[in-house]
Amino acid sequence: MKKYLYAFEEGNKDMKNLLGGKGANLSEMTSLGLNVPPGFTITTEYCMNYQNGHRHVAGFMDTVKKAVKQVEKKQGKTFGDAANPLLFSVRSGARASMPGMMDTVLNLGLNDLTVQGLISQTKNERFAYDAYRRFLNMYSNVVLGVDHEHFEAKFTEYKDKKRYASDLDMTTADLQQLVVMYKKLVQERTGTKFPEDPWKQLLGAISAVFDSWNNKRAASYRRINRIPDDWGTAVNVQSMVFGNMGQDSGTGVAFTRNPSTGEKGYFGEYLMDAQGEDVVAGIRTPHPIAELAKENPKAYRELTGVFKKLERHYRDMQDIEFTIEKGRLFILQTRNGKRTGRAAIRIAVDMVKEALIDRDTAVLRVDPRSLEPMLHPDLDPKAKMKVLTKGLPASPGAACGKVVFSAEEAVHALRSNEKVILVRHETSPEDIEGMHSAVGILTSTGGMTSHAAVVARGMGKCCVSGAGEVKIKYQAGEFKVGATIVRRGDVITLSGNTGEVILGAVKTIPPQMDDYFEELLSWADKRRKIKVRTNAETPLDCRNGRIFGAEGIGLCRTEHMFFDKERILHVREMILSDTNEQRIKAIDKLLPYQKKDFKQIFEIMDGYPVTIRLLDPPLHEFVPHEEAEIKAVAEELGMSAEDVHAKIKGLHEVNPMLGHRGCRLGISYPELTIMQVKAIISAALEVQKEGKKVIPEIMVPLVSISEEFSNLEKKIRKFADEMIRGSGQKLQYQVGTMIEVPRACVVADKIAQKAEFFSFGTNDLTQMTFGFSRDDAGKFLGTYQEKGIINDDPFAVVDQEGVGALMKMAVEKGRSVRKNLKVGICGEHGGEPSSVQFCIDIGFDYVSCSPFRVPIARLTAAQAVLRKK
Amino acid sequence: MKKYLYAFEEGNKDMKNLLGGKGANLSEMTSLGLNVPPGFTITTEYCMNYQNGHRHVAGFMDTVKKAVKQVEKKQGKTFGDAANPLLFSVRSGARASMPGMMDTVLNLGLNDLTVQGLISQTKNERFAYDAYRRFLNMYSNVVLGVDHEHFEAKFTEYKDKKRYASDLDMTTADLQQLVVMYKKLVQERTGTKFPEDPWKQLLGAISAVFDSWNNKRAASYRRINRIPDDWGTAVNVQSMVFGNMGQDSGTGVAFTRNPSTGEKGYFGEYLMDAQGEDVVAGIRTPHPIAELAKENPKAYRELTGVFKKLERHYRDMQDIEFTIEKGRLFILQTRNGKRTGRAAIRIAVDMVKEALIDRDTAVLRVDPRSLEPMLHPDLDPKAKMKVLTKGLPASPGAACGKVVFSAEEAVHALRSNEKVILVRHETSPEDIEGMHSAVGILTSTGGMTSHAAVVARGMGKCCVSGAGEVKIKYQAGEFKVGATIVRRGDVITLSGNTGEVILGAVKTIPPQMDDYFEELLSWADKRRKIKVRTNAETPLDCRNGRIFGAEGIGLCRTEHMFFDKERILHVREMILSDTNEQRIKAIDKLLPYQKKDFKQIFEIMDGYPVTIRLLDPPLHEFVPHEEAEIKAVAEELGMSAEDVHAKIKGLHEVNPMLGHRGCRLGISYPELTIMQVKAIISAALEVQKEGKKVIPEIMVPLVSISEEFSNLEKKIRKFADEMIRGSGQKLQYQVGTMIEVPRACVVADKIAQKAEFFSFGTNDLTQMTFGFSRDDAGKFLGTYQEKGIINDDPFAVVDQEGVGALMKMAVEKGRSVRKNLKVGICGEHGGEPSSVQFCIDIGFDYVSCSPFRVPIARLTAAQAVLRKK
Repeated sequence: MKKYLYAFEEGNKDMKNLLGGKGANLSEMTSLGLNVPPGFTITTEYCMNYQNGHRHVAGFMDTVKKAVKQVEKKQGKTFGDAANPLLFSVRSGARASMPGMMDTVLNLGLNDLTVQGLISQTKNERFAYDAYRRFLNMYSNVVLGVDHEHFEAKFTEYKDKKRYASDLDMTTADLQQLVVMYKKLVQERTGTKFPEDPWKQLLGAISAVFDSWNNKRAASYRRINRIPDDWGTAVNVQSMVFGNMGQDSGTGVAFTRNPSTGEKGYFGEYLMDAQGEDVVAGIRTPHPIAELAKENPKAYRELTGVFKKLERHYRDMQDIEFTIEKGRLFILQTRNGKRTGRAAIRIAVDMVKEALIDRDTAVLRVDPRSLEPMLHPDLDPKAKMKVLTKGLPASPGAACGKVVFSAEEAVHALRSNEKVILVRHETSPEDIEGMHSAVGILTSTGGMTSHAAVVARGMGKCCVSGAGEVKIKYQAGEFKVGATIVRRGDVITLSGNTGEVILGAVKTIPPQMDDYFEELLSWADKRRKIKVRTNAETPLDCRNGRIFGAEGIGLCRTEHMFFDKERILHVREMILSDTNEQRIKAIDKLLPYQKKDFKQIFEIMDGYPVTIRLLDPPLHEFVPHEEAEIKAVAEELGMSAEDVHAKIKGLHEVNPMLGHRGCRLGISYPELTIMQVKAIISAALEVQKEGKKVIPEIMVPLVSISEEFSNLEKKIRKFADEMIRGSGQKLQYQVGTMIEVPRACVVADKIAQKAEFFSFGTNDLTQMTFGFSRDDAGKFLGTYQEKGIINDDPFAVVDQEGVGALMKMAVEKGRSVRKNLKVGICGEHGGEPSSVQFCIDIGFDYVSCSPFRVPIARLTAAQAVLRKK
Repeated sequence: MKKYLYAFEEGNKDMKNLLGGKGANLSEMTSLGLNVPPGFTITTEYCMNYQNGHRHVAGFMDTVKKAVKQVEKKQGKTFGDAANPLLFSVRSGARASMPGMMDTVLNLGLNDLTVQGLISQTKNERFAYDAYRRFLNMYSNVVLGVDHEHFEAKFTEYKDKKRYASDLDMTTADLQQLVVMYKKLVQERTGTKFPEDPWKQLLGAISAVFDSWNNKRAASYRRINRIPDDWGTAVNVQSMVFGNMGQDSGTGVAFTRNPSTGEKGYFGEYLMDAQGEDVVAGIRTPHPIAELAKENPKAYRELTGVFKKLERHYRDMQDIEFTIEKGRLFILQTRNGKRTGRAAIRIAVDMVKEALIDRDTAVLRVDPRSLEPMLHPDLDPKAKMKVLTKGLPASPGAACGKVVFSAEEAVHALRSNEKVILVRHETSPEDIEGMHSAVGILTSTGGMTSHAAVVARGMGKCCVSGAGEVKIKYQAGEFKVGATIVRRGDVITLSGNTGEVILGAVKTIPPQMDDYFEELLSWADKRRKIKVRTNAETPLDCRNGRIFGAEGIGLCRTEHMFFDKERILHVREMILSDTNEQRIKAIDKLLPYQKKDFKQIFEIMDGYPVTIRLLDPPLHEFVPHEEAEIKAVAEELGMSAEDVHAKIKGLHEVNPMLGHRGCRLGISYPELTIMQVKAIISAALEVQKEGKKVIPEIMVPLVSISEEFSNLEKKIRKFADEMIRGSGQKLQYQVGTMIEVPRACVVADKIAQKAEFFSFGTNDLTQMTFGFSRDDAGKFLGTYQEKGIINDDPFAVVDQEGVGALMKMAVEKGRSVRKNLKVGICGEHGGEPSSVQFCIDIGFDYVSCSPFRVPIARLTAAQAVLRKK
C-alpha cells in the first residue's frame, strides 16, 4: 500500500481528496509557518482500503508510532508519559464537510498515570479529572460502543445523591469517584477493562473514526448531499493544546469578515482560561474578538496577523479556530466561512475591489439559492416567536396579518386597509383576487407546486402550503393546531422561507437589494449565454420582471385574466351556452378585454418577446358555485337555474389534470382560440403602431399528439396572417408549443415540424411522468424523502433521471428536424439553480421563472458558463 | 413511361399492386378461360404519375384506342357506332378494397345516335332511354361536377307535374323528355354542351376516376384504414353486358358458401331479364340462386361450374357477380367473400378437410376481431327493435332486463331472480356486487376503459358506457333520452357489440363455440410462441379463463376482494384508524380472508402462474358514504362520527389517478403489503401441500422510481422467505412490477435490476403518457376522431407511436440488465389484435386479457408467427 500517513508538514491545501478538507488545511497552515499543534493525517485511500474488508495493513502501528515520535519531538512531551504526557485529538475529515456526522475523540492518551501529568501541566486537578471523565465517556461511546446514556445516568445519579444543583458543584473528589464508576461501567457493559494503554487507545480511536464513515447518520447525510460512498474519510491525529492553563491561555473562534452582512472587520468570540467546551456549555459568556486587543494586545496582534495571512492566502473569508496556551497562539482549524447570501455578495464584490479575486471568481462565489431570502421580506432573526406548526416553504418572504378564511373576506379587509393572511384547505383560481388582497397565504394541503404555491410565487407573495396539522373549520371560522385554536381575526405570522406558522405578530425586515447585489449581477449578465425571462401576466408582475432583469416573458397565462369581475360572467356564458351561436356571442364579448390585457403587456415589454399561452385550465374552474351567480348566468343565457346546475355537473371531471383542458379546448371550441389570436395580433399591431417593438409568441398548451398542434397552428396562422395583411403593417410572430405531456417528448420530432419553439412546462411534465398529482402528492412525498426513495421534491428540482431524460429526448428530437428550434422552460423549475444548470446542459435558449426568481436564474446561468471553462 | 395499359388477357391475380384488386381478378378470370366481358386496366402507377401533376402522358388516347379496338373485335360491336354500339363501364379498383369511395361511370358511349343502336340491341326502347338518362346524370356528376341533386330535382319536378306515384310510371316519351332536360341542365350549369363524342366521354371518365382518388371521402377512408396515399387506383374499362335482354338474360350475385354460417352450398340471388339496378332499387324481388337450377338448368350448371372453378382456384370462398346476356354467361367480378367470424372459422376448417388449404392458411384466414361476437350472447338479428340511443360498445354481448339505478337494487333483484340492467352515471368499486348481480350495465359517462367498461369486460358482462344522451335522475328513479322517459322497472335491452340501447325486450341468441371453433384454436395454439393469460380474480373468472384456454393469470387484482360485505368494515377500519396499532389490528383481521381468496385461485390455476397485484386503488375508494356505515366504522374504532367524516374528507384527492395509490400505499403502510404477502405465501404453501403446483408472482403496482420497487421488494422477499423456510417446503415465487407510469419506462434498466418481471399496465400508461383521464377523455376523444387527430381510441388500441415507443424502450432497457426478464401486458389492450401483434413484435413473453378475449389473443398470437414466416 502506498504512503498513507502524512505529517502536517507533508501536505498542502490541494490534497483535499487524499487528506480530507480538515487535514489539507492543517497541512497548508503548517507550511505557511503558522503555529499549528503538530500531528498527522491518515489518508482517505487508507480508509477505503480499511473499509473494503482489509482492516489495517501490516505494520500500521509502526508507521503511526514513527509519526507520534516526530510529534513528541516537536512538542517536548511524550505520549503515555506519566510526567509530561502528550495527548491527542482524533478527528475525521472527509473531502466534503460533513459537520457532526462522524466521530471525534479528544484528550486521547489519558489514563490513571497520565492524568497526573496533565495535572502538573495544567496545575488544575479538577480540570484534569473532568477531562479524564469526559475522555472515558467519549472513548467508550465512540470506540467501545457503550451508549452515552449509561454514563449520563451514572452522572445524574451521583449528582442527585449529592443533591448538587449544577455540574459545577462537582468537586475534584467527585470527579475522581466518577472516573472509577465509569471504568466499572465499561467493564460491566463490555466484559473487559477500559484500555489504559495509550497505543491501544490510539488504534481503537483511529479505527472507530474510519468505521464511523459507515454509520447510519453519515450514510444518509451522504445520500442526501450526494456524496459518493467511496470517497472515504481521513483521520487527523493532532496534539492537544489547552486554553485553560491560566490567564495567559484562552480559546476562540473568528471569521475574517462579518458572515451575516459581509462587512469588513473581524467577527468572533474568545474566552481566556477556558476550553471550547466551556463556551459550548454556556457556563461563561465569551467576549467579542475586538476586546482581545485590550485584554491581550500581543495575542491580538499575532492573531489578526494570522487572519490577514489566511484570508490573503485562501482568497476567501475564513472561519478560524484558535487556542492560546500559556501565551502561545495555536491555530486549530481554518476553512472558508459559511455566510448569508447578502454577505456572500458583499464579500465577493469587496474582494474584487481589493484585487484578491477576479470577477469570474466573484460570480462563482455566491450560491444562487442564497439570494432567495434577499428578494423578499424576512422575519427579524432577533425576534422571539412561538412556532405553532410547520408547512412547506412554498413561496418565500414573511408576512403577518389577521386570519381570514375566504377570498371575499380578504378583499373586504384590503378595503379597510387591514393586512390579512388567507387560510384555506387549498386555493383555486376563484381565490386569485383574495390572494392578491392578502399579505400571505396558508394552506393545509397541497405541495410546492399546488395552486397556492405557484400563484403565490408568481405574485412574490409569502405562502406556506401543506401545513397538515392545520385543521380548518370554515363554518366555525377557526383552525386548530393540536389543542390551539386560532380564530378569524387572530394575528399569525408566516415565514415562507422556513414554512413556519407563528402565533402572533413577528417583526419583519424588508427586502434589500443593494449596490453590491446589482454590481455582482451585472457581472453575471456579461458572462451568461442563455436568456432569462419571467412568468407574468399582470402589468405589476411584468414590471417587476423587468426590474429584476427579465429579458422577456416566457409564460403569460391567459386564464387569470378571465377571473376579473367584469368578464367572468361572459366566460361563464361561453362555458355554459347550449348552442354554438350563444358561445360565439359570449366569446366575442371577451375579445376587447383580452386585447386590452395584451396591449398593456406588450407596452411594458417593449423590445422583448412575450410568450402567450392559449387558455389552459379545464372549464369547470370558471363555473359559478354560488346560487346568485348561477342565477345570473342562467338569466343571461335564458336558461333555467336547474339546467345550469346540470351543465355544471356535466363539466365535473374525475381527474381534471388529465381532462378537457389545454389544446383540447381549442380543438373542441375553435372560436375560443380564434378570439385569443385576434386579441393578441390586434393588440400587437396597435402597440407596434405606437412605435414599440412587439415580439408575440403564441403558445399552444398540453400537446400530446402532433396533429393537435398542427390543427390549431393552421387556424392560428390563418387568422393572424389575415389580420396582419389587413393592417398593412409587418409583424413577426411565432407559433410554438408547451412540452408538458410525456408523449409530446416521444413525438417531439413530429411536433417540431410545425412548431417554432418548445417551452417545457415541467410542472405538468413532472406530474404525468411520475404519475404524481401535485395537489395530492403531499400525502406521500414526505414519507418518500424520509425513506430515501427520493432526495429532492421533483416539483422543486427537475428530476434529471426521469423527467430530464424525456426533456433531453424532446430537445434532440425537436432539433433533429428544426435546427433553430427555440427551447425554453416555463415551469417553476426555471428559477431553481440545479434545474437551470440542467437546462443549460441540454441546450436551452432561455429559462423563465417568476419575477422574484429572475436574479437567481441570471446568476446560475452565469455560473454554468464559468464552470464549463 | 413504361407499360401502363393491360388488356385483361395480359394480367393475373398476383398483379394487384399494379392493376388493383378488381383488375387483377378480371385478368385472372380471363386467363382461366371464363367468360369475362373484355376490357383493359390502366395501372395504379399511371394514376400516381397522373396525380403528380403530369396529367396524361403523350399518346395516351392512342394507346386507349388500340385497346378499345381489341375489345371491339372480341365483342363484334363498335365504340360510338350508331347501329351496334359498344358501351363501357369505367370503374376504379385500388390495391385494397375501398367500397363506394371512388367513382364509377356505366353505359359510357351513349349519345343521341348510339342510344338507337342500344334500342336495336336490346329491343327495349324504355330501357335504352332510361340507361341514357342515368348515364347523363352519372357522367355529369362524376366528370363534369354537376351536383346529383340538380338532376334529382328535375326528375321529381317532372314526376310531380305528371302526378306519377312511382318511377315506373315514366314512359319512354317521358324519359326522352328528361334526356333533353338533363342536357339543357348541363349546359346551364357548366356553360358547355354535354360531350356527345364517346372518346371525349371515355377520356373524361378515366381522368375523373383517377381524380377521385383524392376526393375527401376516399382520403379520409385511407386515413382511417391506414392505406398509403401513394398507392393510387387503377381504372378498369370493361365492355357492358346486359341482363335485361329478355327471358334468356339475367343477373345475380352469389357466394360459394354461406357467408353467415359458413355452411357448404351456394348462397345468392338472381333475377332474369333484369339489371343489377333493378335489384338494388327493390322493384323486383330476386330469387334464391338454387331456383335457377329449375328456371335455367343450363345456366345453373355453367354457373356452378364457374363457382367450383373459382373457389378451387382462389382456395377461398368467392363473392361473384354475373350477368347472363341472351343465354351467354358473363362473370363480372370475383373476390374473396366477406363473412362472419363463425363462417370464417367453419370455411377455414372445412377447406383444410377438403385439402384446399393447409392449417397455417386456415389460421391466418380468420380475423381475430371477428371472434368477439361469438363469445357472447348477441341480439337476434331478425328481431325488430326501437333504438333509443347509442353509447360506446364497452363490453360485448347483449342483455335485456329491468332498469335499476343502484347496486343495492341489483343485488336485491337477483335474490328474487329478476334480470336487471344497472344504470349509473358511472360505476365505482362499491358497485361491484351490483354489477355482478345485473345482466348488463349502462353508464352515461366514461369511455372504453372507464371503471364500468373494464370491470364489465372482466366479467364478460354486456356494457354500454358513455351514453351521453342518457340523463339520469336517481331520486326520481328515471332516466330521460330526449323526450322519452324510462322508469325504474321498465325493460330495456343493451347491445354491447354496437352500443345500442333499445326500449323493451329484444330476443338474444346465446354464444356458440362449436367444434370448428375448438379445432381452429387448437391449430392456432400449436403455432403461437407467446403465452396467453387472463385477468381474473374471482373463482368464476378463473374457471372461465381456463375454459377459454388461458395459461395462467396475468393480473389478479386484489382490491375487488376488499369489497365483500364481511370484510369491508375491516378495510375501513384499516383506512380510518388513527394509530398504527389500530391499523395493524384491522389489517390482521383481513389476513384470513385474503388467504382464502388466494387458495381458491391457486387451486383452480394448478400448474399455471398467477400474477397477484398488491393493493392498487386510492384508499378513498373504500370509505363509506352512508351515515349508517360511517357510524359503524366510528363505533368499531371508538371514534366520533364527526372525526370519521373529517378523516374521509382528508382522504379526498383532486386527481385520484395520480394520487396516493399503488406502491405508494405499500410504502406508506408497509403492514398492508406484508399482510398480502403473508396471505399469498401461506395460501401457496397450503395448496402446494395438497399436491398442486403453485407458481405465485407478486406484482408491485405503479412504480415510477426504482427505489419504490426495491423498498417493497426487500420487504416482500424477507417475509416470503421467512415463511417458506418456516414451512419446511420449497416454493418458487417471483417479484416483479407493473410498468404503467411513463417514468418507469425511462428508468426500466434500474427497476429491472431487482424486478423479475414487467407487466405493462397499458391503461394507466396510456392515461399518463397522453395526459388523458380515461374517465374524462370521452368529452373530447370523439371530436378528436372526427377531426382526424387520432384514428383509434388509444384506450382500445395501443398507441404505438407514443405509448408503444415507451414500451419498447422499457423492454430494451429492462433486458439490457436482465436478459431473461419476463415481459407481459395486462392492460385491456392485451386482447386487442393489433396491440397483441405489437407486443409480439417488441418481444413480449405473454399477453393477458379478460377471459372472454383469450381466444382472440390466442389466434392473434398464432397469426403473428405465421405472418413472420
